[in-house]
Amino acid sequence: MINRIIILTIILSSLFMPSAFAEIDTEVAYIFNTFSFLVCGFLVMWMAAGFCMLESGLVTTKSVTTIAAKNIGKFAIVSVMFYLVGYNLGFGIPEGGYIGTLAIWSDTSAPQGNWAPASFWFFQTLFVCATASIVSGAVAERIKIWPFFLFAAAIGGFIYPITMGWQWGGGWLATLGFYDFAGSTLVHAVGGSAALAGVLLLGPRLGRFSNKGEIQSMEPFAASSIPLVTLGTFILWMGWYGFNGGSQLALGSFEDANAMSTIFMNTQLAGCGGCVIGALITRVIGGKTDIIMMLNGALAGLVSITAAPLYASPIEAILIGAVGGAIMYVGTGILNSLKIDDVVGAIPVHLFAGIWGTLIVPWTTPGTSYGTQFIGLFSVSIFVFVISYIILLLIKQTIGLRISAEAEKIGTDKSEVGVVAYSIRD
Amino acid sequence: MINRIIILTIILSSLFMPSAFAEIDTEVAYIFNTFSFLVCGFLVMWMAAGFCMLESGLVTTKSVTTIAAKNIGKFAIVSVMFYLVGYNLGFGIPEGGYIGTLAIWSDTSAPQGNWAPASFWFFQTLFVCATASIVSGAVAERIKIWPFFLFAAAIGGFIYPITMGWQWGGGWLATLGFYDFAGSTLVHAVGGSAALAGVLLLGPRLGRFSNKGEIQSMEPFAASSIPLVTLGTFILWMGWYGFNGGSQLALGSFEDANAMSTIFMNTQLAGCGGCVIGALITRVIGGKTDIIMMLNGALAGLVSITAAPLYASPIEAILIGAVGGAIMYVGTGILNSLKIDDVVGAIPVHLFAGIWGTLIVPWTTPGTSYGTQFIGLFSVSIFVFVISYIILLLIKQTIGLRISAEAEKIGTDKSEVGVVAYSIRD
Amino acid sequence: MINRIIILTIILSSLFMPSAFAEIDTEVAYIFNTFSFLVCGFLVMWMAAGFCMLESGLVTTKSVTTIAAKNIGKFAIVSVMFYLVGYNLGFGIPEGGYIGTLAIWSDTSAPQGNWAPASFWFFQTLFVCATASIVSGAVAERIKIWPFFLFAAAIGGFIYPITMGWQWGGGWLATLGFYDFAGSTLVHAVGGSAALAGVLLLGPRLGRFSNKGEIQSMEPFAASSIPLVTLGTFILWMGWYGFNGGSQLALGSFEDANAMSTIFMNTQLAGCGGCVIGALITRVIGGKTDIIMMLNGALAGLVSITAAPLYASPIEAILIGAVGGAIMYVGTGILNSLKIDDVVGAIPVHLFAGIWGTLIVPWTTPGTSYGTQFIGLFSVSIFVFVISYIILLLIKQTIGLRISAEAEKIGTDKSEVGVVAYSIRD
Repeated sequence: MINRIIILTIILSSLFMPSAFAEIDTEVAYIFNTFSFLVCGFLVMWMAAGFCMLESGLVTTKSVTTIAAKNIGKFAIVSVMFYLVGYNLGFGIPEGGYIGTLAIWSDTSAPQGNWAPASFWFFQTLFVCATASIVSGAVAERIKIWPFFLFAAAIGGFIYPITMGWQWGGGWLATLGFYDFAGSTLVHAVGGSAALAGVLLLGPRLGRFSNKGEIQSMEPFAASSIPLVTLGTFILWMGWYGFNGGSQLALGSFEDANAMSTIFMNTQLAGCGGCVIGALITRVIGGKTDIIMMLNGALAGLVSITAAPLYASPIEAILIGAVGGAIMYVGTGILNSLKIDDVVGAIPVHLFAGIWGTLIVPWTTPGTSYGTQFIGLFSVSIFVFVISYIILLLIKQTIGLRISAEAEKIGTDKSEVGVVAYSIRD
Repeated sequence: MINRIIILTIILSSLFMPSAFAEIDTEVAYIFNTFSFLVCGFLVMWMAAGFCMLESGLVTTKSVTTIAAKNIGKFAIVSVMFYLVGYNLGFGIPEGGYIGTLAIWSDTSAPQGNWAPASFWFFQTLFVCATASIVSGAVAERIKIWPFFLFAAAIGGFIYPITMGWQWGGGWLATLGFYDFAGSTLVHAVGGSAALAGVLLLGPRLGRFSNKGEIQSMEPFAASSIPLVTLGTFILWMGWYGFNGGSQLALGSFEDANAMSTIFMNTQLAGCGGCVIGALITRVIGGKTDIIMMLNGALAGLVSITAAPLYASPIEAILIGAVGGAIMYVGTGILNSLKIDDVVGAIPVHLFAGIWGTLIVPWTTPGTSYGTQFIGLFSVSIFVFVISYIILLLIKQTIGLRISAEAEKIGTDKSEVGVVAYSIRD
Repeated sequence: MINRIIILTIILSSLFMPSAFAEIDTEVAYIFNTFSFLVCGFLVMWMAAGFCMLESGLVTTKSVTTIAAKNIGKFAIVSVMFYLVGYNLGFGIPEGGYIGTLAIWSDTSAPQGNWAPASFWFFQTLFVCATASIVSGAVAERIKIWPFFLFAAAIGGFIYPITMGWQWGGGWLATLGFYDFAGSTLVHAVGGSAALAGVLLLGPRLGRFSNKGEIQSMEPFAASSIPLVTLGTFILWMGWYGFNGGSQLALGSFEDANAMSTIFMNTQLAGCGGCVIGALITRVIGGKTDIIMMLNGALAGLVSITAAPLYASPIEAILIGAVGGAIMYVGTGILNSLKIDDVVGAIPVHLFAGIWGTLIVPWTTPGTSYGTQFIGLFSVSIFVFVISYIILLLIKQTIGLRISAEAEKIGTDKSEVGVVAYSIRD
């Protein structure tokens, strides 16, 4: 009788306090993980629209339609290339290796982790789209559409997947102990390095540097629409929660839910730090509060925290973002003084702040070292810069990279797309 | 003693390995299902903004405020009508029947499935809003505001709910074995058929076809803002994940999480296929890479996969989307040559690609037949076209449908809304 | 033997029907609650972009860049201030008390409820950002940037947190039985009261009331871009689902999932009611269907349901929203006749409809009283108005609040930011 009472007590306690003993159900964790990839994935997809709005607003009126066409086209091409080629090239890498396999990822139902494989593909694909977006803004207003599409295909199919695989595919950088949580290097420095190769090969827009380095808002290179730039920045900021938060790659436990929340919080605060610094610097130095530097400052702050959004304290997140914003400001000036024409500031925002974010990781994150961070950053950036330069040079020597001077004068919208961006009449 | 040890072992195994034996908790599945309706629902709501931006960008400057007013007004009117009339007319249908009941859906807490009833209402309501959005773009620049609102009320209260109920309410088409996962027919062909009735009754804009079929970007019918069109397309694309993914109607199991993920992936790839085809065709045929055809191509690709986003392989999804894009391109030309004035290309995108998407279902989806698909598509489209034509004709004969020629010349923004869209000065 | 069978039966039933007996796993509920804060949080963040677009569209062309700079800057400053000061000032309040503690919220991992603390911070922070956004539109086109930033810092660090803590921090209003589910008073009346203090101290824009109260669309104060205003409203509407829904503060049970769904539904219907009323009133009274009144009507409807979106029936939600829209319309006229210059209508939308929403709570919500609602509304609004007035007066007397008449004539974009909003050329 006493035995039965004891047993019943145990049974009843198992009914009413399962969480005290049991781990979370595998299926429930699977659904949480999967749904977090889908939700964070559509946020990262939204960044493609953010880049498009930001770039459409920052180019001059006569290149707006073209940059929009490049953004939607690149979004489509990169997704398809990453499915056909890139996915297995990156994630099919052997442990500690250098490159994956060249095969379509056809076995879409094979288990990878405790999530639906298609949800992981969705999330990863949109990362590649973001990377390619970084390039399009820098080379705007003078690159031909189809050569750009060709290069975007190379990014989505080969360039991004290879270096991504070194780390997130479990390749040699992961073995070495490199740390890049959501891609200050693997996305932002990669995009920025490819953009740098592009602007060097293309040269500046006609008349951009007739005098020494002008600031962006000066005629006749004035941004066509500041509200669109602002909208684009808000969109990117929103998407960044998913970009960084989803990179936890899981939601189905106390630890993962806490981690994702901390990442959202630190992402927010780093963006704030970069934005405030952009406002303060321009107010103090130039007398005016330059909105472009506030927006690019926010983005630079977001890039900076991307390498390590998990272990930073809130104060550290603010500081990392603020320094990132300052680096972007200085970097913008340096590029201008070197007469390197980066139309939207993609290189200062993504490459320079990406470098900072990658190298500062050991300040906040246990088990990382400055040396390894440098090796990872250096090897990825150089590889991407060199391979991008070679591919773009090949394009330049064959089908050509830059539009004709005449086409540039009348604008790419009329010469390449045949549709004018704005037809606003009274 | 041995008995007790056996029993304790069983108890302990139940504590630490619940997932090995138990199905997922009903309450947990209920929350997953409900939350997926809310998340996918706000994505579909977002499509209303996408349609609004797309249409605002594609009309001429003098009709922008009007189309924005129509979009927000229709969004409100349709939601209320679907609550008051449509919901029970569609979902109150008897099994295998033709029409539901005419009664306000007041019992909002009665169980329907393993989800919160209000979350299901939310998701379904936003589908109706999307359907009505398809119409507004086609008939833009010449329909009067309030007659349009009246017709939108008819769509939200009667037209959409009836044919939707035939399939998703468990009516006769469902019994027959028709397959339309997320609405290539029930949303897109329905919206497109109603739009076709509208443009036929209204006739083209003044001066639109003085010469033979002009392309959309030609003066004086140039799109007012290409960035807004692009933004609208990105918004629609983003919303489409929820539109198709949420139509799985569940998230709370391995199978549902896998299905929703596959749907997100196929949706992405079909949109890409359509966009790339739009770029390729216009580049090859006209020499220029027409952004409108890329954007409408992407949308046509998304429409095409909507009937069956679950069983298609990724390659099939790309192909279905690509063919959808090509059909949209050809269809646009046909409408122009017939001097049918569809301002935003709603009929080629939603009706023509919707037809394609519905008819190609048996290629990918087990248990479906071409004959049944044709019956479903045909009966729904004809019903909607005829009933829309009758309602619009009644409106035309009574309160009038089209603005005066004088109002059209000065533009609907000034004549109907009294607010100019853009006041941009130096 | 029989004993064993009974026991085994109980054990097996515990394995296969856990939901029949057990409560939902604490960890699962924790993840649901946390994820709902993150998802609803990014929706509320999105409202910051909505305010920015709405305000950018409603100001004249020469103040667009400035209002965008104010919106992104305020977003950053408020977040940091709420982290550094406001959070503990609001949530560190003793039960029934008046003010919390002045200390940085550093213990970010201490348990608060069954959710990740950082997710709660994220959600709450974005509420403060929304509150500060309400102010910026009202005082647009004549307030200096940095004095505005200073006031935004005061809102994020002190003003909002104090009155918020009275209710949501468990202070004296909560003890009294005041009911404000998602902030008709604590967010919208607070923002509106601060805005009223601002516009009274600033006075109207130069030339705004040379004649008696003009309507907003009249030259030379015409809204710069109606599509942006519409986009902003759609964004705000989308964000409102998260704003109201997330205020359930939980998702991890049948009851919470049902509640969140009902809130989404009622939020939708109240917005619809307000929008339709705005259309009807302006059509009947002025002959034209004024889009601004439709958009502000929708927002007023959304504000009105915010105090009690849970217990209202759908019909009640529509009516509450509709009356809110009508109050906004009347209030707009009253402000104009008083020559109070509220550029975007923030006071009619957020303060007047917020008052209505707060006072009508007892109609729908059990356990509430009109007297207590009045006390809560009155004490919060007066406190915020007085403290805001004092702070702004101090700013005015020291560093100055309003730009010079000369700067106003050339526009704040040129005088304060140095970047022109639109550079659209043929």
